[in-house]
Amino acid sequence: MGAVGEQPGVVVDLEKRHWHEECGVFGVWGCENASQLTYYALYALQHRGQESAGIATVEDGRLHHHRGLGLVAEVFGPEDLERLRGRAAVGHVRYSTTGANKLANAQPMVFDLHQGHLALAHNGNLVNAGLLRRRLEEQGSIFQSTNDTEVVAHLIARRPGGMVEAVTDSLQTVQGAYAFVFLTGDCLIAARDPQGLRPMALGRLGEGWVVASETCAFDTIGAVFVRDIEPGELLVIDDGGVRSARFAPRAKKALCTFEYIYFARPDSDIDGRNVHVVRKALGKRLALEAPAEADVVIGVPDSSISAAIGYAEATGIPYEIGLIKNKYIGRTFIQPSQALRERGVQLKLNAVRKVVEGKRVVMVDDSIVRGTTSRRIVQLLREAGAREVHVRISSPPVRFPCYYGIDTSAREELMAARLTVAEMREAIGADSLAFLSEEGMLEALGAGPEAAFGGHEFCNACFHGRYPTRLYEDLGKNVMETVGERGGRP
Amino acid sequence: MGAVGEQPGVVVDLEKRHWHEECGVFGVWGCENASQLTYYALYALQHRGQESAGIATVEDGRLHHHRGLGLVAEVFGPEDLERLRGRAAVGHVRYSTTGANKLANAQPMVFDLHQGHLALAHNGNLVNAGLLRRRLEEQGSIFQSTNDTEVVAHLIARRPGGMVEAVTDSLQTVQGAYAFVFLTGDCLIAARDPQGLRPMALGRLGEGWVVASETCAFDTIGAVFVRDIEPGELLVIDDGGVRSARFAPRAKKALCTFEYIYFARPDSDIDGRNVHVVRKALGKRLALEAPAEADVVIGVPDSSISAAIGYAEATGIPYEIGLIKNKYIGRTFIQPSQALRERGVQLKLNAVRKVVEGKRVVMVDDSIVRGTTSRRIVQLLREAGAREVHVRISSPPVRFPCYYGIDTSAREELMAARLTVAEMREAIGADSLAFLSEEGMLEALGAGPEAAFGGHEFCNACFHGRYPTRLYEDLGKNVMETVGERGGRP
Amino acid sequence: MGAVGEQPGVVVDLEKRHWHEECGVFGVWGCENASQLTYYALYALQHRGQESAGIATVEDGRLHHHRGLGLVAEVFGPEDLERLRGRAAVGHVRYSTTGANKLANAQPMVFDLHQGHLALAHNGNLVNAGLLRRRLEEQGSIFQSTNDTEVVAHLIARRPGGMVEAVTDSLQTVQGAYAFVFLTGDCLIAARDPQGLRPMALGRLGEGWVVASETCAFDTIGAVFVRDIEPGELLVIDDGGVRSARFAPRAKKALCTFEYIYFARPDSDIDGRNVHVVRKALGKRLALEAPAEADVVIGVPDSSISAAIGYAEATGIPYEIGLIKNKYIGRTFIQPSQALRERGVQLKLNAVRKVVEGKRVVMVDDSIVRGTTSRRIVQLLREAGAREVHVRISSPPVRFPCYYGIDTSAREELMAARLTVAEMREAIGADSLAFLSEEGMLEALGAGPEAAFGGHEFCNACFHGRYPTRLYEDLGKNVMETVGERGGRP
Amino acid sequence: MGAVGEQPGVVVDLEKRHWHEECGVFGVWGCENASQLTYYALYALQHRGQESAGIATVEDGRLHHHRGLGLVAEVFGPEDLERLRGRAAVGHVRYSTTGANKLANAQPMVFDLHQGHLALAHNGNLVNAGLLRRRLEEQGSIFQSTNDTEVVAHLIARRPGGMVEAVTDSLQTVQGAYAFVFLTGDCLIAARDPQGLRPMALGRLGEGWVVASETCAFDTIGAVFVRDIEPGELLVIDDGGVRSARFAPRAKKALCTFEYIYFARPDSDIDGRNVHVVRKALGKRLALEAPAEADVVIGVPDSSISAAIGYAEATGIPYEIGLIKNKYIGRTFIQPSQALRERGVQLKLNAVRKVVEGKRVVMVDDSIVRGTTSRRIVQLLREAGAREVHVRISSPPVRFPCYYGIDTSAREELMAARLTVAEMREAIGADSLAFLSEEGMLEALGAGPEAAFGGHEFCNACFHGRYPTRLYEDLGKNVMETVGERGGRP
Repeated sequence: MGAVGEQPGVVVDLEKRHWHEECGVFGVWGCENASQLTYYALYALQHRGQESAGIATVEDGRLHHHRGLGLVAEVFGPEDLERLRGRAAVGHVRYSTTGANKLANAQPMVFDLHQGHLALAHNGNLVNAGLLRRRLEEQGSIFQSTNDTEVVAHLIARRPGGMVEAVTDSLQTVQGAYAFVFLTGDCLIAARDPQGLRPMALGRLGEGWVVASETCAFDTIGAVFVRDIEPGELLVIDDGGVRSARFAPRAKKALCTFEYIYFARPDSDIDGRNVHVVRKALGKRLALEAPAEADVVIGVPDSSISAAIGYAEATGIPYEIGLIKNKYIGRTFIQPSQALRERGVQLKLNAVRKVVEGKRVVMVDDSIVRGTTSRRIVQLLREAGAREVHVRISSPPVRFPCYYGIDTSAREELMAARLTVAEMREAIGADSLAFLSEEGMLEALGAGPEAAFGGHEFCNACFHGRYPTRLYEDLGKNVMETVGERGGRP
Repeated sequence: MGAVGEQPGVVVDLEKRHWHEECGVFGVWGCENASQLTYYALYALQHRGQESAGIATVEDGRLHHHRGLGLVAEVFGPEDLERLRGRAAVGHVRYSTTGANKLANAQPMVFDLHQGHLALAHNGNLVNAGLLRRRLEEQGSIFQSTNDTEVVAHLIARRPGGMVEAVTDSLQTVQGAYAFVFLTGDCLIAARDPQGLRPMALGRLGEGWVVASETCAFDTIGAVFVRDIEPGELLVIDDGGVRSARFAPRAKKALCTFEYIYFARPDSDIDGRNVHVVRKALGKRLALEAPAEADVVIGVPDSSISAAIGYAEATGIPYEIGLIKNKYIGRTFIQPSQALRERGVQLKLNAVRKVVEGKRVVMVDDSIVRGTTSRRIVQLLREAGAREVHVRISSPPVRFPCYYGIDTSAREELMAARLTVAEMREAIGADSLAFLSEEGMLEALGAGPEAAFGGHEFCNACFHGRYPTRLYEDLGKNVMETVGERGGRP
Repeated sequence: MGAVGEQPGVVVDLEKRHWHEECGVFGVWGCENASQLTYYALYALQHRGQESAGIATVEDGRLHHHRGLGLVAEVFGPEDLERLRGRAAVGHVRYSTTGANKLANAQPMVFDLHQGHLALAHNGNLVNAGLLRRRLEEQGSIFQSTNDTEVVAHLIARRPGGMVEAVTDSLQTVQGAYAFVFLTGDCLIAARDPQGLRPMALGRLGEGWVVASETCAFDTIGAVFVRDIEPGELLVIDDGGVRSARFAPRAKKALCTFEYIYFARPDSDIDGRNVHVVRKALGKRLALEAPAEADVVIGVPDSSISAAIGYAEATGIPYEIGLIKNKYIGRTFIQPSQALRERGVQLKLNAVRKVVEGKRVVMVDDSIVRGTTSRRIVQLLREAGAREVHVRISSPPVRFPCYYGIDTSAREELMAARLTVAEMREAIGADSLAFLSEEGMLEALGAGPEAAFGGHEFCNACFHGRYPTRLYEDLGKNVMETVGERGGRP
Repeated sequence: MGAVGEQPGVVVDLEKRHWHEECGVFGVWGCENASQLTYYALYALQHRGQESAGIATVEDGRLHHHRGLGLVAEVFGPEDLERLRGRAAVGHVRYSTTGANKLANAQPMVFDLHQGHLALAHNGNLVNAGLLRRRLEEQGSIFQSTNDTEVVAHLIARRPGGMVEAVTDSLQTVQGAYAFVFLTGDCLIAARDPQGLRPMALGRLGEGWVVASETCAFDTIGAVFVRDIEPGELLVIDDGGVRSARFAPRAKKALCTFEYIYFARPDSDIDGRNVHVVRKALGKRLALEAPAEADVVIGVPDSSISAAIGYAEATGIPYEIGLIKNKYIGRTFIQPSQALRERGVQLKLNAVRKVVEGKRVVMVDDSIVRGTTSRRIVQLLREAGAREVHVRISSPPVRFPCYYGIDTSAREELMAARLTVAEMREAIGADSLAFLSEEGMLEALGAGPEAAFGGHEFCNACFHGRYPTRLYEDLGKNVMETVGERGGRP
């Protein structure tokens, strides 16, 4: 949800959130005030999860930890950070992809294993977690949460030998999208899934080391970016430095495209690309593919502002602020009743009448999921006097569910899975509607033909239905029905 | 703090806040769910005060009220709104200009007078409050807060006769900048100060009426703007409709210019002008007065984005997102220690390296108060690789304190009161620095020669030191020292 | 509410509470850690009020204060006591006699007057408070609470001259039962009402001085009892020592008898008598007046245990523990539904079956107000197998309302005002019922003929209807109806 | 801690608590409002644990649960009980014998096993818990608490087959003192340890069944006592009724004597004896063994009041209330600093001067552990003017640690393990000191020669060092040193 001068706010677009979601992880080894550094790093990653936050530190081989529901600033008080002593830490902000939003599911999770203490933070979704859990429970393991992260801990607990070996072994058993950070009494371990679906980077802070889901966390604490962690790579960081190992063979990368389109902060660089720059390029390419006769270009805040600026720059139509978003809605905000909504109470967005009145408006948005939000915004602009509303989407139509970060996997909820673009235009009430082509998107991303790009690729399964990993039967029936038509399934 | 697609965030620019500050008031008469409507209206006005919030309603002549420290969403739960029954309400969000930030100072304040129950919400600062309070205390009045609002209640309490007459009389005694909303068992009373320093507008909602500091509150609840309240005008709203009266003679308007420059939401219209449109005009005019040889134009989020877009449009230099602001800092956020700050922890703003690296950057900001923030941002941009940084300010230099919404009135804290523009440029480390001229500002505001503009004027005392009201001795010694040089003092 | 080894618990007998109630006050001057000392003193006085607690201290002429709803231990944290710096303090625990149980009514109340800062704690009830408040409001005073204590502050505020003079003057205007402690920047002022209806004592603590509603507070903090404060006496305590003055002529004492019968802690001494010793004497006297053929004597915990021991000692019948009281019910305890109560859920008291089964039981209680509690306990004992239940009350029948500490003044709620003793026995289901005679009570109290006792007397108005002060019309209509039959009204 | 009309207060005697401690458990099957009934039952058992409370219910095979730190009334709100739907429940109040006082250790603990959902509440201490835990961890089990209760859940989880069989099997593996209540989707299971060290009783409530640590819980909710659960007995309660099974051979009972001496509520009956009646008998027997020349008999509240009454009755010396205990200290109470304590601040007990001044006092207490409390009370009585203080203890000297409910197992902390009675008298400053003999205690308990009593016996290991179960090496080193001298060890 990058923005013009903005990171995603407390008010997330729930429509998109429910369709595709991630968390934020951070780890540090070998720095004084590790808990404070982690606090500020999590604050920089807050847009990746506002439901819970947690930090675990290690001091003389013992773990301290604290976690709670809410924003980073709500969960931690000065006395908590004070208590979290030590020179190494792992932190997590969470949006629940799986598991209910309750404290037991907050991360990092902390375990006492026969190998020693272990704190564990995870960004991702394991597609075979249900299967593994059932098997472990039959063997007598007791789970304390509904979080798929815990499966990994139980796999480790049942392995003999040392912690690093047990972690490496266990990662070969789980499948899906993930970035893990493990903290033990002796070392920090960071691992990225074999396809590289989820991002994670390594940085240097003084004599110590840091890892994070996004580089904006490095900037916030004054750390220097070193490199992205490779797909299937496991880093073991201790006082001796960083050791790299592979737990999966080198494969084509398949980073989730939506990190660029919608999710990451505009000031972050992921796998070599800056998010804002990519978004602006998507907007420019969209202008070439789908120009419009119009007076002003506006973006839907926050994540579509960069694309709107790109669209305006490529077309020469002035860029304007036509929609204002209120960021103050927090967890405890009271939603208006149906009666009040019908009488006109509208909280999140407000159209700037003086900007759109009597104008032909290009409204740039990053994606359409269910389509209800788009219809509402078009209506808002018309009520504020817009003469025409031309909707331009800076990504292709989303026609397939995501199995790597899902709340709802029902394909029928995706507007583009049910309707043609013409029907969608009709449904949202726009004067025209156009999506960026998949080719255009890849070109803007610089992916081009694979050879030209050093093997770099993306997971675009939600656009075309070809998934980069095996999918498991236990994802539920409504998934299974969808699966039949997927070409990419092994 | 208007913004590109943004209203001011929880993270306010404390440097500016401490220099000049306002509150938000709202009132409604004759509508079902008055407390809910007020809740959503206050939420729209949240940028005007994040320290406390409160609502009072009237039901069968009895007042219910609830207030607390924090954001609207923190202060009210569903059961609070439920308990606040009635078809009329008054609400307030507060930033403390005078009086400590404690619950006793939160508004609306509620009083039992011999005339009946009274709830009172106030946006502004009374310059003779101290004088009046001392006199009232000597006569036996007991104050329960350090809030200057309470002075008005005591004045009313000591008047014989009915409530409306007592209110009218009392307003003739107080001086300063204010927008008052009074709620009694029988009516809602709204009053704007004789100079119109503070804004307030009237709206219609179904069969009922609303008043608010900014029109964005009307949009949020589906109300329709009717007109701005006149300086020195008092509206009495009851089931019979709206009656207008004057408690002060018709005078030249002197609306605070900073409502446009920095404070109001970009989607609000004040006294006939849209805030975003004004800001963009200020940016365009600034481009004419102070162009720059540069590669990109960036704005300091949130309030300077509109001006930056205007500057870019007028110069043809591309507008970019070069600074990202983190909005999640709340009341309870733990500030980094000096040691951590020195080691590079920087929370509020992050520069986008890929945007500014190797570039000549125009950085547009709305104002400079102490100058410390400006210096920090310039440094941030240089560290991110900017080749040149040209600072452009979309208002004139602030050289005089404000007595109508002050926390600190010490003139020596104002950078422009101490230094020349050349010295300021040196101090903030910019390659060049320019301010908008006062004439340019007035022209962009459309003020022009008075005749051409129907008598419309502004309070620009902070730029030139000529104050629109009498100032009182009890403002404190450091004020008095400043007063000597003021020309406008009666 | 004295007890065998027990002070009154969190679980107060609400039947008695609602009929007659008091608060606890404490003051200290000239001692280090004044807030801590007050905290422990209030803890010793906790039985006098569990609804709210508060402390104000003075440091360099400035007041600090903190108050809240709940028990002393709930209201204050270590950081609160830390913040309450100074060598003088005043504290209060409250049971609401008048004014709703809300924070605004918690004490000490703190005021800024033209004479200076003032903190005020009050145990009692002013019978002309309503009249005075109406008059003050008509003159423009604004009240912030519904507490009659605030009337005194407004009277003081309207007096010219210094604080001590204004306090002395104001006390001549109010009427009723009271013990006041005032804390100013310069001194501590303690005053007891002209009839001495409410107790207050003076103690010495190192170089400093303390005042308290009961002497158990002195024992708890290691202070030494000096003397009781006289009716109509005002003590001004500052660094120069204690000065005594009279604001009312010397009159016959009229201490409320219920301090001994029910309210005070058994280890406190009031006006020269120990509470436990008096209660035991009442029980012995009751044994002489109303013996019973029985196997065991039991007391209703907590306040009737001393009287039961006395009754057992005088009759030779063994004293036993036949009723157990659960003390853990706090403010937030969830009361059982009617359905659960009917199915046998009984929380407060439990009969010890092995003690009462097959026995003739004497059940000693201190008083009967509405009679519902007595009926319930008799039934409880019968269900546990008691063969006979003989109820003995260690005070005379309560037939008249109390105007000095009332929640309900309706005479018809008093069982003894409606029924004869025979009818009462029938109503509560006892085999026999007897009350202590008024003469017996006075004799046990050592009051005897006035001359023989140095003029010492008691307020027994609730037994005979002759009140020691004027009563005012504004006590409400149902009071007025009762008033007609009172002989003692001037 | 039985008392004259009193159950143990919030203020527990920490000296005794730390030496020997228990919890309270309750279960109900087949009753409407099961959560409410459990709430009130736990309230009756509150004296058995004030650190945490919890309830789990079952509805349609699914568990709901809620637990927290603090008193029952603090942990549960009406909405919690509302949410805890179902006709079966298990509840727990806890004093930490093992495991830190943190939420993770609060009970009932809830687990998802392959056999189904399981809630588990435990009163007791497993002597081989550490050993079993280490073995389970090595096999890959992950513990979420430091509570020994969790060991049982892991044992069950690793057993194949149904829940009841797995529970029965698992109980044959654990050793120590325990009363377990298990709640599953199908039934309630209650089990008492093979020695019957911990009490548990069965009751009937309408059509449903209840089990509880003490019968006072039955009285509170209107249930009828059926019988005590046998040592080594397991009850399975479901809609078909109650089935009894044995998981251990019939053995001699060894109920902990301290249940009678100190811990249980006076109105409870345990294994056929009423607690108050036993305590009074102990006092009478003590009077025969160790009479005193004295003027008054007083008891140390709360648990020694019954014994004091018995002592007084047997000697003819009047029983008096000589010590008052303040019950209001809660979890958050601020302890006085050392400086304040030295200056005389004493919170828990106050002597009644008028009762003890100039008198020869017999002070009856139930036991002496470290002796510090006894010394303090003797001093208190002397400062209040007691001429002589004769201490009489209603149990034998405690000379050996308890392994079934320990916080501290260091034998050197036990005063009677280090000193003779004469030295103890000297140490506590009494004029005389006497303990009840072991024979006298058994006689008062009605134990007599085993044949005469149907095989009923007690665990008196703390008096003589002969323990009824095997003790394990992993109890820690300081235990091991003590073990050498124990005769009873296998």
